[in-house]
Amino acid sequence: MAGLRVRSALLTGANRGIGLGLVKHFLQLPNPPERIFAACRDPKGERAQELQSLASKHPRNGALTSCCVDSVDVTDPASIQAAAARVTEHLKGSGLNLLINNAGIVKWNSLDTTTREEMSEVYATNTIGPLLVSQAFLPLLKKAAQGSPSSELSCSRAAIINISSIGGSIASESSWDMIQIVSYRCSKAALNMLTKCQSLGYRQHGILCAALHPGWVQTDMGSPPLTVDMSVQMMLEVFSKLSEKDSGTLLDWEGKVIPW
Amino acid sequence: MAGLRVRSALLTGANRGIGLGLVKHFLQLPNPPERIFAACRDPKGERAQELQSLASKHPRNGALTSCCVDSVDVTDPASIQAAAARVTEHLKGSGLNLLINNAGIVKWNSLDTTTREEMSEVYATNTIGPLLVSQAFLPLLKKAAQGSPSSELSCSRAAIINISSIGGSIASESSWDMIQIVSYRCSKAALNMLTKCQSLGYRQHGILCAALHPGWVQTDMGSPPLTVDMSVQMMLEVFSKLSEKDSGTLLDWEGKVIPW
Repeated sequence: MAGLRVRSALLTGANRGIGLGLVKHFLQLPNPPERIFAACRDPKGERAQELQSLASKHPRNGALTSCCVDSVDVTDPASIQAAAARVTEHLKGSGLNLLINNAGIVKWNSLDTTTREEMSEVYATNTIGPLLVSQAFLPLLKKAAQGSPSSELSCSRAAIINISSIGGSIASESSWDMIQIVSYRCSKAALNMLTKCQSLGYRQHGILCAALHPGWVQTDMGSPPLTVDMSVQMMLEVFSKLSEKDSGTLLDWEGKVIPW
Repeated sequence: MAGLRVRSALLTGANRGIGLGLVKHFLQLPNPPERIFAACRDPKGERAQELQSLASKHPRNGALTSCCVDSVDVTDPASIQAAAARVTEHLKGSGLNLLINNAGIVKWNSLDTTTREEMSEVYATNTIGPLLVSQAFLPLLKKAAQGSPSSELSCSRAAIINISSIGGSIASESSWDMIQIVSYRCSKAALNMLTKCQSLGYRQHGILCAALHPGWVQTDMGSPPLTVDMSVQMMLEVFSKLSEKDSGTLLDWEGKVIPW
């Protein structure tokens, strides 16, 4: 973890689950980021109270580490653009080191009952969202990469991390007998493809791009069960070690490669 | 090819390219299907004239082989349901052996310029379409499987073939330097996932499900160039050999497995 020195990070879906856990653990790092932008769809809503409370302990001005809660609806290009403008202003000429596309949804339907509307809705959030957010923050990521003393790819320099799932691994057939969730699986397979495309397209700009499977945190009935805290703790460890060879791959919370 | 004895087949996107080529070659088989349903979005439009001309030589009544042109917009559930009702009536209690989800579109944009609208539109046709069409024709496919003398999976018994692309192979990075087409790649990776889900879900019903890459037919600059006729000829050869082991895989026009 000592190797992770991220000056600024932005996370979507930061108000709950894995997203909230990542914000908490970033703030507890020995070298926490100077600026954490914790984005969610409805920062003033009831489901963002824990995040707001956390952020209030790390105010925008006067602290070594600030945590700003920002409003981003990843399905709305105007909302994304407005957030990118605010973050750009806030960073005062600095770049953004780490973008974590974490916002995601799931619909619990089967192969036979999945509808057109569900397929579209899940794809809009889980796949198109990360594309649009990455496009909007690309200038800040490029700036961070250019301003870095290192020429190696790393999360400390500039990176896009897409929170994906082993459910999006076509090869693994993970948990099919328990949960079919076809709209989710298709969206995550497409997100894995997007990650590969981003790694190929942004390598030249010094930006590392990887997809991460945080574990079946909510539903894992295995032994030992994986909690959000354990998953996030180990994912930060993975972040600290990511390098050139990992760009364009899908890794689990322990850093193991998952086949496509 | 002698092994391919399909009594009835339905293809989407049958008015041009690979779809039209498949209809032509099916009609030329030593044992052609009794019923070919050649579906496209606008059967009365200018771009369906060649298909209409071909079908007029194989009329609905009085011939050993009939080729019916039908109207299906794969992005419109009502259009799909109406077509399934018509085909069900036409088959007079028989099942449908082979469903080929061939309709597809491409948008020639890059990682940086792909829009939300393009992502949605391409996904609707290339991924959601095959899901909805397969759901609608599932009762007929099940019927064909149940009525078959064989208990093995095959195209002659009951199969869903999704026309995919090596462009949807995350592992292959195919032609990235020439064409990025991110919306297309994501939609085809998701279609590959759908194919895997269908293979897992429909195995119990005796339905084989596979994805096929017909080759970069339009854009292949290699030597020798792949024509539609060559691609389709070889794909029919692949159809004739598909079995249990191929269900849930992505194969090219020569029957070689493409990694996910």
